Amino acid sequence: MRLRNIPGAEEALRQYPTFVEHPASYRGRWHERYGNRHPIHLEIGCGKGRFITTLAEQNPDINYIALEVQAEVIYRAAQRTEQRDIPNLALVQYNARMLTDLFAPGEISRIYLNFSDPWPKKRHAKRRLTASTFLRMYKQLLPENGEIHVKTDNEDLFEFSLNQFAAERFHLQKITFDLHHSEWAAGNVMTEYEQRFSARGQRIYRLEAIVQP
Amino acid sequence: MRLRNIPGAEEALRQYPTFVEHPASYRGRWHERYGNRHPIHLEIGCGKGRFITTLAEQNPDINYIALEVQAEVIYRAAQRTEQRDIPNLALVQYNARMLTDLFAPGEISRIYLNFSDPWPKKRHAKRRLTASTFLRMYKQLLPENGEIHVKTDNEDLFEFSLNQFAAERFHLQKITFDLHHSEWAAGNVMTEYEQRFSARGQRIYRLEAIVQP
Repeated sequence: MRLRNIPGAEEALRQYPTFVEHPASYRGRWHERYGNRHPIHLEIGCGKGRFITTLAEQNPDINYIALEVQAEVIYRAAQRTEQRDIPNLALVQYNARMLTDLFAPGEISRIYLNFSDPWPKKRHAKRRLTASTFLRMYKQLLPENGEIHVKTDNEDLFEFSLNQFAAERFHLQKITFDLHHSEWAAGNVMTEYEQRFSARGQRIYRLEAIVQP
Repeated sequence: MRLRNIPGAEEALRQYPTFVEHPASYRGRWHERYGNRHPIHLEIGCGKGRFITTLAEQNPDINYIALEVQAEVIYRAAQRTEQRDIPNLALVQYNARMLTDLFAPGEISRIYLNFSDPWPKKRHAKRRLTASTFLRMYKQLLPENGEIHVKTDNEDLFEFSLNQFAAERFHLQKITFDLHHSEWAAGNVMTEYEQRFSARGQRIYRLEAIVQP
């Protein structure tokens, strides 16, 4: 997602208690930030934050980290948390390529990848967040049986992702080609993009990939 | 596939050298029928036999078994082998539910499931040839790294199959939602049904499932 440049977004972000300055300093001790040992779920590419703030409010016993590389975008997510008390949510501006700087092995229990950039050109395949180099990096953050949940409206990205997860020996489950008409529709929290997109009748693909022992 | 009743099909079948009488008597010693130790590939539901007779002619170093439950249908496949010398092909009329009567553990290297009946009603899900009870049976016939190749035009059956294979801990590979426009299009041998269907512009789904060590 790209938004127009918001002057001063980076400084403004520091005013929000949900925003984490110097996130790499929490590597291996994120639980100290939350003041508890609850499992940590990470969304990579949180956009304006509808998905993860909703989950955080629904599940006070899970700690959430919303990752986004662009200051302007995470600023919108921060604004969404304004005047809401969400102590189990942390907003982090960081590049997804460098997640091992942020998290110790096994520190993250679950990763959400929602409507990631499909990078449709073959020569850009390595930039897709489900490319094998990313999957191997996620494995370093997740424990055995750690989960990655993927949603996308892009069929080519979904087909690519299935093959990449299988090649990296993840266990796959709850695969659906039409989430909103599947048995997993109830309880699905939609992203902003998903709301707009499915309102037009487009299908949403979804899978879960589990780190095999 | 259902064909009109062909009077005398069962007797007529016995005239074809490719047709196997008393197939269960070959359990554990199919190599004796072929006179060699080449790997054996099995198609479950061969229809009129275009797919498997083509493969058998292309690959003389692989032995093929075409399985079909209906006499009338396998009779059509037998007719196709007429006046062609295909010593590495055997036609078997048998119920797919009872494959362990026909084959010893590890005796089959690869199974093909082409355009199997989708049994679309949920209460018939157990009849689908990729239902978990079938997958567990196939595992009994296949060695480690044995393969199951699935093609279908039915998206719901494909989605179901992905989940069932994953749940039974097969390793998945070469998943495509549009075989004829994929990197695996070259070398694909089409069934009769596939020819008709893809001529109308319909997509073909495909996967390979491997028995994990």
